[in-house]
Amino acid sequence: MHINNSDSNSSLPYREGGGRVSTYSFSVEPFHVDFTGHLFLGVLGNHLLNAAGRHSHNRGWGIDQLNERHYTWVLSRLSIELTEMPAQYEHVEVETWVESVMKLFTERNFLIRNADDGRIYGYARSIWAMIDVETRQPSNLLELKDGDILNYVIPAEEKPCPIAKFGRTVRFSNEPYRAIPTYYSDVDINGHINSVKYIEHILDLFPREQFEHNFIHRFDIAYKTESYLGDILTFFTEEVPEDGCATASTHVEIRKHVGVAEKPAGEVVVQAKVQFKNT
Amino acid sequence: MHINNSDSNSSLPYREGGGRVSTYSFSVEPFHVDFTGHLFLGVLGNHLLNAAGRHSHNRGWGIDQLNERHYTWVLSRLSIELTEMPAQYEHVEVETWVESVMKLFTERNFLIRNADDGRIYGYARSIWAMIDVETRQPSNLLELKDGDILNYVIPAEEKPCPIAKFGRTVRFSNEPYRAIPTYYSDVDINGHINSVKYIEHILDLFPREQFEHNFIHRFDIAYKTESYLGDILTFFTEEVPEDGCATASTHVEIRKHVGVAEKPAGEVVVQAKVQFKNT
Repeated sequence: MHINNSDSNSSLPYREGGGRVSTYSFSVEPFHVDFTGHLFLGVLGNHLLNAAGRHSHNRGWGIDQLNERHYTWVLSRLSIELTEMPAQYEHVEVETWVESVMKLFTERNFLIRNADDGRIYGYARSIWAMIDVETRQPSNLLELKDGDILNYVIPAEEKPCPIAKFGRTVRFSNEPYRAIPTYYSDVDINGHINSVKYIEHILDLFPREQFEHNFIHRFDIAYKTESYLGDILTFFTEEVPEDGCATASTHVEIRKHVGVAEKPAGEVVVQAKVQFKNT
Repeated sequence: MHINNSDSNSSLPYREGGGRVSTYSFSVEPFHVDFTGHLFLGVLGNHLLNAAGRHSHNRGWGIDQLNERHYTWVLSRLSIELTEMPAQYEHVEVETWVESVMKLFTERNFLIRNADDGRIYGYARSIWAMIDVETRQPSNLLELKDGDILNYVIPAEEKPCPIAKFGRTVRFSNEPYRAIPTYYSDVDINGHINSVKYIEHILDLFPREQFEHNFIHRFDIAYKTESYLGDILTFFTEEVPEDGCATASTHVEIRKHVGVAEKPAGEVVVQAKVQFKNT
């Protein structure tokens, strides 16, 4: 196991929840809610990524600090499971911590709760790799900074994250459901399509009625490769029954095409699963 | 003139800048910057609207307070003029105040500056109407709450906003440049296409190269009528030389179509102007 239970973290600056857990707060702004008055999942995703960024930064592992060393964090997978989506004007707290560190990946978890009454909206899991900016190759997390990252691990037995890990998506044999071009607003500072924009584009596959009587219970997304400004994205969808669940999941695959999308093939950029539940 | 210079505002809770001006701060998050490392204009627009919302709320004129009285604010025009766009990790302060109140409209201004060194990024002007939610008719601002709104006015002689007011756009005679469908992520809590989403869609009309060597010096947008989830938006563009300016403006008109956009006609939803300058 690559887990270090030493007490060396006791010298870290303490924040709410202790030296290995950070808590970040935000309010659900009117401009961040959908037509049902609930937070957009993409905006929640953004807040989770911000929480992750600050937690890393405060421990010397932020992207801005790593860039000087020519490394950067790459989000590989994100799974969000909610019993309720925060509503307009609610105050939300996100706890984040690292559950494990392997050679090439680290698992970071999130707890999402109401800051006023403490009720839990849900949890999230994420998997990150560290890559060398020049070579685009993954780096050995255990060798960087003399294994310092292990000081921040909280094993699952100590702080559980009670949602399933990312599950596989099906194979897609059908025709693409939609193809969209990508523009200026889709890309981040690296010129890549923004990870949150994929979430928006995926939810845009569903009609208005889908959101009127349901909420997004679970959303899983795996980032397989980067796409760039100007790429055409094609979206494949498949309804899949979930074991022991009343409602099916929609599995989604996004493939990219440089220029016009002529063939159904194309490199896989993103795989995702969306499960709605009745409100 | 509908301006009240009385000293009755001295009993208001004081915030930075005095009782009629509020200052709101934000940081330029990594997930809010474009590929040049500068804040997305749409995100800046969001921050301005948030500042406006809080300034109104703290004076008893917030949307949540007005909804109880069946009124709501509607943004009619927004003009942003910048000498520089805030960059990633910079700390920004937005000052906002009301310059004038007329029967059916109020003018609200913004100053945008760096919180650390005080340098001014630019200014913004906006025009708002108050409508009755049931009848959709504009309300008389001077009659609501016994003319209380006049207590918050700072006339231009006292606090100038040194950018031009919104100027007209040209007539568009050409074919539409682009047509796009609207989806779940485009709409706000009222089911209308979000005012900031129009800004994104307009900037998405420009190719990558436009942003590589230029920044958005000035952006004007007039909201003429609402569009809804499922409407098709068509975009008309025209290059227009600006008097005394080296660079032309791009004038944009957005029209809406219910269902498929067959005709170039269609109700005008938005008119806008974008002026880039060399960086």
